[in-house]
Amino acid sequence: MARIGIFDSGVGGLTVQRALIEALPGADTIYLGDTARLPYGTKSAATVTQYSLRSARVLEARGIDLLVVACNTASAVALPALRAALPMPVIGVVEPGARAAVKATTGGRIGVIGTAGTIGSGAYTAALRALRPDALVVAWACPLFVPLAEEGWTDPADEVVRGVVRRYLAPLKAERIDTLVLGCTHYPLLRAAIAAELPGVTLVDSAETVAAEVKALLPASTGRAATHRFLVTDTPEKFLAVAGRFLGRPVESAEHVDVE
Amino acid sequence: MARIGIFDSGVGGLTVQRALIEALPGADTIYLGDTARLPYGTKSAATVTQYSLRSARVLEARGIDLLVVACNTASAVALPALRAALPMPVIGVVEPGARAAVKATTGGRIGVIGTAGTIGSGAYTAALRALRPDALVVAWACPLFVPLAEEGWTDPADEVVRGVVRRYLAPLKAERIDTLVLGCTHYPLLRAAIAAELPGVTLVDSAETVAAEVKALLPASTGRAATHRFLVTDTPEKFLAVAGRFLGRPVESAEHVDVE
Repeated sequence: MARIGIFDSGVGGLTVQRALIEALPGADTIYLGDTARLPYGTKSAATVTQYSLRSARVLEARGIDLLVVACNTASAVALPALRAALPMPVIGVVEPGARAAVKATTGGRIGVIGTAGTIGSGAYTAALRALRPDALVVAWACPLFVPLAEEGWTDPADEVVRGVVRRYLAPLKAERIDTLVLGCTHYPLLRAAIAAELPGVTLVDSAETVAAEVKALLPASTGRAATHRFLVTDTPEKFLAVAGRFLGRPVESAEHVDVE
Repeated sequence: MARIGIFDSGVGGLTVQRALIEALPGADTIYLGDTARLPYGTKSAATVTQYSLRSARVLEARGIDLLVVACNTASAVALPALRAALPMPVIGVVEPGARAAVKATTGGRIGVIGTAGTIGSGAYTAALRALRPDALVVAWACPLFVPLAEEGWTDPADEVVRGVVRRYLAPLKAERIDTLVLGCTHYPLLRAAIAAELPGVTLVDSAETVAAEVKALLPASTGRAATHRFLVTDTPEKFLAVAGRFLGRPVESAEHVDVE
């Protein structure tokens, strides 16, 4: 059976791993969170590419058949370098997210939110325009959303949460978007607060679309019990404390790896 | 004349460099911001120590007479390892900050705010108790303060700023602290908002105290024109965009160094 490698800067990519496990119940998965160097979203494309290549090499050495780049920032800036360096198929989250948004939009007014790195790269805008040249695309960086989600401040009734969400989403609301891509794996934790601020707008999370694409590429499940493993570059304690919430099932152990 | 090395995870330590330049106008300074790996405040002590040692080695190779660890998290967890590895004197910001707080307090009720890494280490509490065993010390991590400062959301009249500051400072206010240590080099940017929430409380920023200690250790200024240089581990663009605001004078160029 196939073994899928999943790579992210931290814990957020576990939401993608969760969708993969649900879509391909017989496949083994191995996750690498580059927790010693997170976040990627504030760093330059050159540095994110260097870190992504090193992390991917660790997964390659473990014998994977396909690599999913769950990190939006790495997907936005490092995909060509990863595809050039690795022998197996490499799937990012930007293209599937853009496809899902183009499918969902009713009026062609599409918003994208993400880290400064993801939005600054212009990758989502380019992918959306390639699929639908007449689309209005409003891309906006929301640097406080990751620390808000990590602090657990996600309740839509919380005035601080509401204040931050309202400020970031105001330009998208003003453009009357009908669809919004959650272009960062942390943002689904803020889904309720975002939805409350943008009633009637379809929220797109690329995890399910990525899982469907991977399913189409790999042999069908055999029904055997799959194994799921976790690697981290910082010490495992902090990862283990929150991983279960992102994966939707208990994560009991994670292996520390040094990717220098 | 002496050359002082200053090390921080990012730009915040430039406030310490600024105080050093003012206190020792004849000394050369060389700053290293480990911008490719920031922030340190969310990472484990083992990882912060590893990164700190590598950055210090880069400065050592440039020929420094004294190293100032401007990063509170690195000062809190990596100082013994740095002192063991380096031949020159190493000064952190925790001890000077604690000394300044003990000098400032009127009733012995001292608050400390910092990153999760700094507060979790217990270094400030230990340093304060060593100097004044009967002090009440209330230490509290404020993870959103760094992204708030970096986003430029620092206006005390801003309802989001006020909401975040109020929430984090509530436990310190409830304990009726009379002195508060700003235990992170980013926090002075939020000084006005913090002061508005804690009227009558003395705010301690260790930059000046550190500069006074360094001045006592180094030969007196000769009046020659000093040079100030800047090294960063990520690409220099983002650093240069904000460095002047932290240093209080223009920063025109920074050299990229790879510390792997």
